[in-house]
Amino acid sequence: MKNIYAIGVGLIGGSLAIDIKKNNPDVIIHGISRKDTTLNTALELGLIDKKATLDDLGNADLVIVSIPVDATVKLLPTILDKISDTGLVVDAGSTKEDICKAVENHPKRRNFLAMHPIAGTEHSGPTAAIEGLFKGKTNIVCEVEKTTFKLQEKALKLFTDIGMRIRYMNPVDHDKHIAYMSHLSHISSFMLGKTVIDKERNERDIFDMAGSGFASTVRLAKSSPEMWTPIFKQNKTNVIETLEEYIINLTHFKELMKQDDFDAIYEEMASTNHIKDILNGIS
Amino acid sequence: MKNIYAIGVGLIGGSLAIDIKKNNPDVIIHGISRKDTTLNTALELGLIDKKATLDDLGNADLVIVSIPVDATVKLLPTILDKISDTGLVVDAGSTKEDICKAVENHPKRRNFLAMHPIAGTEHSGPTAAIEGLFKGKTNIVCEVEKTTFKLQEKALKLFTDIGMRIRYMNPVDHDKHIAYMSHLSHISSFMLGKTVIDKERNERDIFDMAGSGFASTVRLAKSSPEMWTPIFKQNKTNVIETLEEYIINLTHFKELMKQDDFDAIYEEMASTNHIKDILNGIS
Repeated sequence: MKNIYAIGVGLIGGSLAIDIKKNNPDVIIHGISRKDTTLNTALELGLIDKKATLDDLGNADLVIVSIPVDATVKLLPTILDKISDTGLVVDAGSTKEDICKAVENHPKRRNFLAMHPIAGTEHSGPTAAIEGLFKGKTNIVCEVEKTTFKLQEKALKLFTDIGMRIRYMNPVDHDKHIAYMSHLSHISSFMLGKTVIDKERNERDIFDMAGSGFASTVRLAKSSPEMWTPIFKQNKTNVIETLEEYIINLTHFKELMKQDDFDAIYEEMASTNHIKDILNGIS
Repeated sequence: MKNIYAIGVGLIGGSLAIDIKKNNPDVIIHGISRKDTTLNTALELGLIDKKATLDDLGNADLVIVSIPVDATVKLLPTILDKISDTGLVVDAGSTKEDICKAVENHPKRRNFLAMHPIAGTEHSGPTAAIEGLFKGKTNIVCEVEKTTFKLQEKALKLFTDIGMRIRYMNPVDHDKHIAYMSHLSHISSFMLGKTVIDKERNERDIFDMAGSGFASTVRLAKSSPEMWTPIFKQNKTNVIETLEEYIINLTHFKELMKQDDFDAIYEEMASTNHIKDILNGIS
């Protein structure tokens, strides 16, 4: 493996570039981005070795696509058009159904592996890229059987080498479950932030009252709207379902409070407490 | 200051005992708890020097009450009955109106200072107590004018010495704002945990998909129902108001998604993004 192309050099693309370069010092990381300023920053930070364009992809051994999921859907067929017969293309999108569909009939489908490395922070852009982001994290691989065996192997070695554990899932199940495990958290956090900001707009020193609990719960409200709007759009049906269930649960909690049924309020919390055990090991 | 009594030796009481003892090595920390096993643990961990009961309070220079807020309301008059004229009683409850009301006409009201140190973790009990929990955190003091000046001074020195900044607020405003800044976060977190657990009950390995974002957003769902049920009960009116606004915002977000108005979805997130600046400095 010699030439790696990172299409998107932000939090995910940049962090992958750091870890892969560390394990494979001889590779050349080529960066591709819509914005030249982003590429310059990535170059200054040492995330990439060279700037490139889509027209250079012919010599790519590996292409990593880490851009908003709507851009991935649009660009992926063109990327596959341009790579050689031995080139591997992976994506890191938080949705999988639309992305897999976009290339299902592409003549180079077997050169593509659909992935979702579940790692990140609330920050974005090349300056957010950090070493070791993927260590101990899960990488969901979809439709593995549709990728050439040799390229599967190559990708899995690369990602286990940077510390990831691999899980296999079909795109429909991925999108359904990730709506609960990730997308809903982002909306609950954004709307919590909105509720508090709207209320306390004119009393900014009230935020002195914010503790680490509030900070933790609204952390995801710092996330990038550029990344998240297309995720919600592509996973609309599943996300609406999670939101409906969440709103029902919140409304039920509110009604119990109105009825002064604090025994039931206690039970609501006690029965959720074992999230402790479930989350053991996730930081 | 010689004899300090910690009524409640859990996360807050225990952590306060650690920091105060560190700054004042000569004090004797007496622990009081409903449960003898809790006291034994606190003793083994070195959080307290001695076990005690309410009948020992006569020689107390300082009493720190860190127990569920319903127990504080019930016990506070008795505690004040038992202390000497120079004894200071402080509480650490997350509600202030009912607690202040419980002793408003007590003959020893001037020996009491109502506080809310905004610090904590999702863990509870003596084993959760840690050094330095209060460093850089806010301590809200209510009705400061109702406390003897000398005892005010004593308390403020003690709490600034362990690294806290002091803010003054009346109990009604405290309870109104803390509903937004803390209580709502706990409910949003508990109900998020419930929504996900209910859905994924039979598919436990789905939790392999949980990333650090989910963990952060549901962290507070590990909190103690014993502590939180009485908080919601005492702050019922304010908490219901925050829940209503939160549900309205979530429902609006859901409706925008149903209408495919993703420009508005983008705006909802972008306009909340500046929570970044607001939260700067809170970890």
